[in-house]
Formats: sequence, structure tokens, C-alpha cells
Amino acid sequence: MLEQTEFIRNAWYVAAWDHELQAGKPLARTLLGEHVVLYRDSAGKPVALEDRCCHRAAPLSLGRVEGDCIRCMYHGLKFDANGRCVEIPAQAHVPPQAVVRAFEVCEQDHFVWIWMGEREGAHASRPPAIPWQSDAGWRWKPGYMHYRANIQLITDNLLDLSHLSYVHLATLGTPQTAQTQPEYREIEGGVEITRWDIGSAPTPLHAKAGMRGMVDRWLVFRWYPPGTFLLDAGSCPTGTGAPQGVRQDGIQFRNTSIQTPETAHTTHYFWTHARDFRLDDAALTDEIQAQMAAAFEEDRVVIEAQQEVLRTRAPGPIVGIAADAGPRMARRLIELRLAQDSAAEFA
Amino acid sequence: MLEQTEFIRNAWYVAAWDHELQAGKPLARTLLGEHVVLYRDSAGKPVALEDRCCHRAAPLSLGRVEGDCIRCMYHGLKFDANGRCVEIPAQAHVPPQAVVRAFEVCEQDHFVWIWMGEREGAHASRPPAIPWQSDAGWRWKPGYMHYRANIQLITDNLLDLSHLSYVHLATLGTPQTAQTQPEYREIEGGVEITRWDIGSAPTPLHAKAGMRGMVDRWLVFRWYPPGTFLLDAGSCPTGTGAPQGVRQDGIQFRNTSIQTPETAHTTHYFWTHARDFRLDDAALTDEIQAQMAAAFEEDRVVIEAQQEVLRTRAPGPIVGIAADAGPRMARRLIELRLAQDSAAEFA
Amino acid sequence: MLEQTEFIRNAWYVAAWDHELQAGKPLARTLLGEHVVLYRDSAGKPVALEDRCCHRAAPLSLGRVEGDCIRCMYHGLKFDANGRCVEIPAQAHVPPQAVVRAFEVCEQDHFVWIWMGEREGAHASRPPAIPWQSDAGWRWKPGYMHYRANIQLITDNLLDLSHLSYVHLATLGTPQTAQTQPEYREIEGGVEITRWDIGSAPTPLHAKAGMRGMVDRWLVFRWYPPGTFLLDAGSCPTGTGAPQGVRQDGIQFRNTSIQTPETAHTTHYFWTHARDFRLDDAALTDEIQAQMAAAFEEDRVVIEAQQEVLRTRAPGPIVGIAADAGPRMARRLIELRLAQDSAAEFA
Repeated sequence: MLEQTEFIRNAWYVAAWDHELQAGKPLARTLLGEHVVLYRDSAGKPVALEDRCCHRAAPLSLGRVEGDCIRCMYHGLKFDANGRCVEIPAQAHVPPQAVVRAFEVCEQDHFVWIWMGEREGAHASRPPAIPWQSDAGWRWKPGYMHYRANIQLITDNLLDLSHLSYVHLATLGTPQTAQTQPEYREIEGGVEITRWDIGSAPTPLHAKAGMRGMVDRWLVFRWYPPGTFLLDAGSCPTGTGAPQGVRQDGIQFRNTSIQTPETAHTTHYFWTHARDFRLDDAALTDEIQAQMAAAFEEDRVVIEAQQEVLRTRAPGPIVGIAADAGPRMARRLIELRLAQDSAAEFA
Repeated sequence: MLEQTEFIRNAWYVAAWDHELQAGKPLARTLLGEHVVLYRDSAGKPVALEDRCCHRAAPLSLGRVEGDCIRCMYHGLKFDANGRCVEIPAQAHVPPQAVVRAFEVCEQDHFVWIWMGEREGAHASRPPAIPWQSDAGWRWKPGYMHYRANIQLITDNLLDLSHLSYVHLATLGTPQTAQTQPEYREIEGGVEITRWDIGSAPTPLHAKAGMRGMVDRWLVFRWYPPGTFLLDAGSCPTGTGAPQGVRQDGIQFRNTSIQTPETAHTTHYFWTHARDFRLDDAALTDEIQAQMAAAFEEDRVVIEAQQEVLRTRAPGPIVGIAADAGPRMARRLIELRLAQDSAAEFA
Repeated sequence: MLEQTEFIRNAWYVAAWDHELQAGKPLARTLLGEHVVLYRDSAGKPVALEDRCCHRAAPLSLGRVEGDCIRCMYHGLKFDANGRCVEIPAQAHVPPQAVVRAFEVCEQDHFVWIWMGEREGAHASRPPAIPWQSDAGWRWKPGYMHYRANIQLITDNLLDLSHLSYVHLATLGTPQTAQTQPEYREIEGGVEITRWDIGSAPTPLHAKAGMRGMVDRWLVFRWYPPGTFLLDAGSCPTGTGAPQGVRQDGIQFRNTSIQTPETAHTTHYFWTHARDFRLDDAALTDEIQAQMAAAFEEDRVVIEAQQEVLRTRAPGPIVGIAADAGPRMARRLIELRLAQDSAAEFA
């Protein structure tokens, strides 16, 4: 099975960028196949409810935010931030079964995060920290892509860098990329993939950022289930000790790439590409954003085509290759988390 | 179940406006999930047949009207108004099994009505009379909407006026509407809902029609299964005896809103909003039509959203409220008619 | 059953026009429900493979032609013309199960033909010869239509000329066509349908091509399963011996109409309408092409409507008529070929 047919539920997922959730404007979003309405309460704190009124199934996202509550604008039922119906027009008694499901949400590093499993589980963990998104020493812009593909196909893509030689030949990769082996290692709750390119020419993006002459370039990917990739990338003049940690003459970037399943065959993809130099150079910010968007678009084309093959054609063999090492490590972690979900459900 | 999964068959349904059925032009229309071709015979009388040639299944609606008959324009079979094949090119004998289904139809009050059950049942009843549509003392224009929703969701909407405070807040309703109780009453073959608003300001439409000062306003809805709503609405200067029937200083309207299922999830909606004053004021006619169309559009948005929730999301609770009284009465009448259909089938 | 639910597999089908397959450009095409990638090897010979990489199911049609091979541009696996994987980046050993299905293909009469059954079966037969498409003495242009219909509905159409009186009344037919009987006869591997029109006015097309006065006109159709129609059509001055073979004062055309199923409900339709006179009159070439395309479009409208009826409506009776003789002969031949396929599979 190349696709995830079941999603990890007891985990924090990105539901939206913070700027997408504006005061007084309900936001409808499908997450893990569930339809959710998000809004901000009177204190600006995000709230997430099932997007279906318990009276006649009208979507609450067509409703009206009233203080900490949202009112269904079909027949007027009002729900609080816990999903409890607190008012039915012209009716004294509100029956206790008049409720909609509520989800735990929090805001961190400019993301609105949601916990799709049992609410109490949310209190024992925090979303992964993405320091460069809340540190004024880094410059970035919010990115978003909508994918017509199962999340696993995107996970597989990000965990096997050999595709840079084929998919990104015109942008991020070189023909040599697929010929060299990255280093894989299990880390606390995730996988780390490290790649060093010693004594090579700077990439176009690094050259644009000021690197001249030969460089030592690094890519350190960390992936955490269900769908968080955090990348440390940069280059220094070759031989100046970058592999040993001496990096003051170089440049560095941080990339965030987070996937949240929308449905079994579509995925939300939130991303940023941050830098800690030339912070006030807005043109550079725009150019980095455009270059990364173009490269991500190359991935989207091939992954959506792959999804279409899986969706429309007779099942066929899936032959493994050596470069699958990263995706295989990720799959084991996903299986573990699914087993934990299952155990929690029957605990 | 919020949706009707089975439709009343032994009943008159509106198939089309009379002007839609032009001489010599077959009209294809789907009614209760069945594909029907309608045309006018040589005397102008409407005919309705199954829209599927019994030879190779080509649609007869691509055919040619010839006198009282219609000819399939694929291989030339000709059918009469009873669905009997009366000619096969270059073939002397027409086999008796060469037939397509024929439906009873009649024309009344500018509608073409069709009976989708057994033909003989049609002779024992007439479509409901809509006098203002055939009386020169009333002025109106034909209206039509196509709904992507099951007929029951529209029936529910029309039988619970509390939605005026939410759906039509900007057009027909006020925040107070949902707070007051209408009066429900069973009538011969249907339900009547009456609502009085004593000593209030005229609605924008009534003001436009000439009402000044405080008014007494009435809304008397009658609904008959499977889908006919007939409304008597108007206002008089307050205190002049309108509730007792003294209405000569007021104005009045009649609204027709008739639904015919197209499929399980789509519905034809035929309507008019008639008046008996300022008959020659064409601008007023257009304005009334535009205002009603705008209000009906508000219903369509929420009802189609509700249908989409029912279609795409996991089944959830349906919690009843006091305002469901009208829809519940209608449901009982529909269940009764379905039971009668079932009894007739096995009689 | 009006539709073919199973396709003949051990047969040559047209996959593409030769000009559609350009050096270095993979062509994706769905044939008999299977997704195929076609490309030209280093010698220009066509190759056809399953359009699905055996590693992660990416479509090979997004790949890169390299000599006689095609490389998947996701992770770089390279396949030869027999579908064998011959290279996996950074991996010494290629496992023997790393293969994709390969199809027999050949090029003849400007068509790229494909054999969708077992490859060895292909060697015992050749595609039908279409001499006018490779003879400089004939002038024609390649035609193509995409049909939203099962192949059988098109076969039925071409084998029952009575439809000319209805579908093509404005172009190719006359009201009399359906009243006269063509002559049907079994030929080696197919069916022949002959029709003579003695002493009639020339058709508009024949008049445009120079025929004046009364003519004797012939139409000799030959059909071979799975979907090849070859037509000899022409006219001579009446009474000059055309039925006996004396045709030097007349004009003649050859039509090719070949169908290849794309899916159960869509079909590729390749066609030409060739002539052996006024070869350098490019305007006449264009006019013939436009007239034939317009007539074929009339067929498409009715056949796609028929398919839509079969797809969307309740099954109903299929009443046979005398004009079904040709389609019935074709069906028997198709059944025979399907039985042979079945026998071959279990041999």
C-alpha cells in the first residue's frame, strides 16, 4: 500500500495559517476527512467545531460569530466553544443531546494547530516548535499548496532526496544527487537525514544570496509524524570547518513543510523558507519564495500524476529500491503511531 | 432521515410551464428520476412519453414531432401519443412489444401537469386549482429555480417560518419572527399555517406597493403534498378589521411555490408572486419578481449547503426543536400518501 | 446487452496516427482500459509499455526517452523496449521483478498499431491493409474523433445504413435510404454490405467532384472485427456499366473508419476519406474533410445521447427490427473472436 488509508488521530496538525482566521469570519476546512468550522472567540482564541448543526445539518460555517459562540443561520441554534447548544429560538429548554463535536486547538509559531483525536490526549503534548517562525531574527513568508494526493505520497517524496536529480533537475538538483547516499538516523520521535556536498559550486539560490567560490553545503532534514519536515540548509566557503560547526562565514536557511490530510486523496501543504541575513531585502524574500514555490510545483506535478495512476489503474507490483530507506523509516514510525492510536481507543 | 428516499407517485406534479412546450419542439425533462419527453400533438395538447426508444435506446427528445406522433431520428421508429410504435421503416409488421411508456398529462393554470403513477389513477383527481394564475384580475410572471437538493429539504424550509429571522434577515424577515409562534392546522388534504403581525411597520415590499403608517399583516400558507404551497399575504392599516376579514383598504398578494423532484438530489421549483392591484405597472411587476427571486436565492444557498452536508459527511444526530411542528405535520401527510401508493400497487 | 462489456484482446488495434508519435516525446494513451506509453526508439520504431513505473507507480509518460529506453523522471529507473528495468540509480543490482508490461506494436499505412493480447499471438497476423493510405495515387488527410460511447454503439451505427435517412438527412442521406434493403454477405473474417443507387441525382459531394446528370452510385462497406470499416464509394454516369465494373468515366472514394476502445464508455475513432482524382486540389481535400467531419459529428451526437440513456436510465426492452441484420452479423463475429480469446487463454 503506497497510500495511508488510516490517519494518525492523536497528533497536532496544522489547520490554518493564523492570518487565515479573522475575527468574526468562520472558516470552513476539511481535515482528515472531517468538516470543521474554525473561528476566533471574543478574546481572539481559535475555536474548532464540527461543521454541521445538530438540528438539520446545515453547515455552521455559514453561521454568525457571536462573542465566544457561533449561531447557525438556518434556524438560529447557538453553540459555545465546547460545542454545547446554548440557545434555541423561542424554546425554553435546550436538550442535552444538542451538541456538536469540539476539537482542541492552539496557536503557535503563526499556525493554528488542531488535535483530531480525543480531546484529553491533546493536553499531554505540544505541537513541534518552529523557532524561526516566531523569532524576529528570521525572515519568511507563509506558503500554502493544495495537493490532490494522499499525504503518504508527499511524505515519501520528502524522505527520498534521490528525486532531486529527476524532478528538480532544472531547479534544486544535479544529475549527481541520486548517485550519492544521504545519512539516515533515528532521532527522538522522528527521522534525520543529513547530506553534505563538500567543495562544490554554490546553488543558484546560494549564489544569489552572496556565496562565491567553492562551498561546503549541508542539508539536514528532520521529519516527525504525522507530517512535519524541518530543514536546516546552508553553505560556507569550502574547507572553513562547516562540517565541524564553524559557520560564521556562511549563510543558512530553515524550511518548514507541514502536511495535513484533507481527505484520503487530498492534502494541505503549509510551508516557509526562512533566512537570518539581509532581513530587510524584500526583493530577496520574494525571490526565495518564488523559487521554492516553483520547485514545490515540480513535486506536485509528479506526485499528483502518481496518485492518478494509483487511483485509476489496475493494482500492479511495487518493487522496492535502495533509495526507499528514508520512506521505509517513516512508514515504521507511522505504523507505530497508528498502533498507539488503536491501543488508546481500546484502553 | 431528512431526505425523501421514495417519492409519492400517484399525484399530479408540475412538469413544465406551458410556454416551455412549443409546437414541434420536444422537451426533455427528468421527473422523479424518470426521463420524459414532452411535446404538443396536432391539436396543441401536451403528450408525455418515456424518453428512450424501445429499439436502441436513443432519446426520443432528439426526435421529430409528426402530427400527433414523435419519430425517433436514429432509425426512424414512430410512436403515437399512447407510446405505441406505429411505424418501422421498410418493415410491414410492427411487433406489439414495440412500445414506450406514456404518462397522463393535462394543462391547467398555465402549468403542464404530469401523473407519474398508474395512468388510470389520474382520472380520479385534478391538479390543485391556482385561480390567480388563470384570472385576468391578477398580475404575475412565471418563475423557475433549479435546486441541487432533495424535495424534502425544501418542504421543511417552507413549513418552518422561523428561518425568516436568519436566512432572510436582509429581505423578508425580522429578528422577531423566530420568537413568535405561527398557528398550524390540518385542512382537507393539507396543512395551513397562519401568521399575523398586528400593528407593525409595513415590509419594504408593502411600502413600495403603497402602504403607509402602521399595518396589520397576514401570511396564510397552505401546503398540499407532494409539493404545492399556496400563500395568501397582505396588509391593511392597523385596526381596520383585517383579522375579521375587512380588507378593502389593504393590499394582497398570492404566491405559488411548487416543487417537483427531478432526482433524489435535485428538484424543479416553479413559482409566481401575483397581485391584484396596479395591474399595468410593469416596473412594479419586475421589481416584485426580482425581490422574491432574491429571497428564494437565500433559501437555495442554505438548503444546497445542507444537502451537501448530508451527502458528504458522516451521519450524525438530528435533534428536534419546537419549530419543527410544521415540517412534522407535512411528513405525516407524505408518509400517508406513500402508504396509499404502496397499497394501490398491491391492490 | 447493447454494449461490449469485454473487448477482443488478440487483435491489432490502431493506437495512434504515425505523426502523433514524435521522436523523443512519449505519448500517453488509454487503450482497452489500459494505460500505455508510446515512444519511438533510436531507429524510429514505435515502442509501447505499461504507463506505470514498477517502483512507485509514477507514469512513464512523464519520463525521458534515452536511446531505445525510457527513464522514469521520478526516481530515475530506466526501462528498455521490452519493459525490462536496466538501471536503478546508485544501485548495482536490478531485481528481475523490476519490469513493466510491453506490447507488440508495428507501423503500417500511417497508423501505429498495437496488439493488446499475448505478445506471441501478434506474430501470426498483420493489421488489415489499407492500400490507399500508402499509395501516392490517393489523396487524404488524417481524421480523429473522441467518442463518449462504447465501441459497440459505433459498430452498430456503421453496420445499419438505414440511419442515413434520419441522422444524415441534411448531409449524406435521403428520405428513401431507409426504405431500400442493402445486400449483406459474409466475407473472409468480416462482413460486406453493398448498396446500389441506380439512376439517381449525384450527392452534393459527388456533384462538387464533377459528376453531372443522372448517376449509378455504389457503397461497398467491409467491416472486420474488432473495429475496421473500409468503404469503396463512387458514381458513374447512369447506364454506363458501373455495376458490371466499367467505371472509367466515374469518380471513386475510399473511406477508413477505425475504432479502438479507450475505456468501456469511450472510444478512439480514426478516419480518412481518400480520392484518386484532382490530387493537387488542396481546397477540394479540405472541403471533403470538412463535409465528412460534419456528417460524423451527426453520428456522434446521437450515439453519445444513446450511450447516456444506457448509462443513466433504468434498463428497458430492446426490440429488434429488420434493419438490425448488419449489426447482428457483426455481433456474431465479435462473439466468435471473444470465444477464441477465451480458448487461447486456457490453452
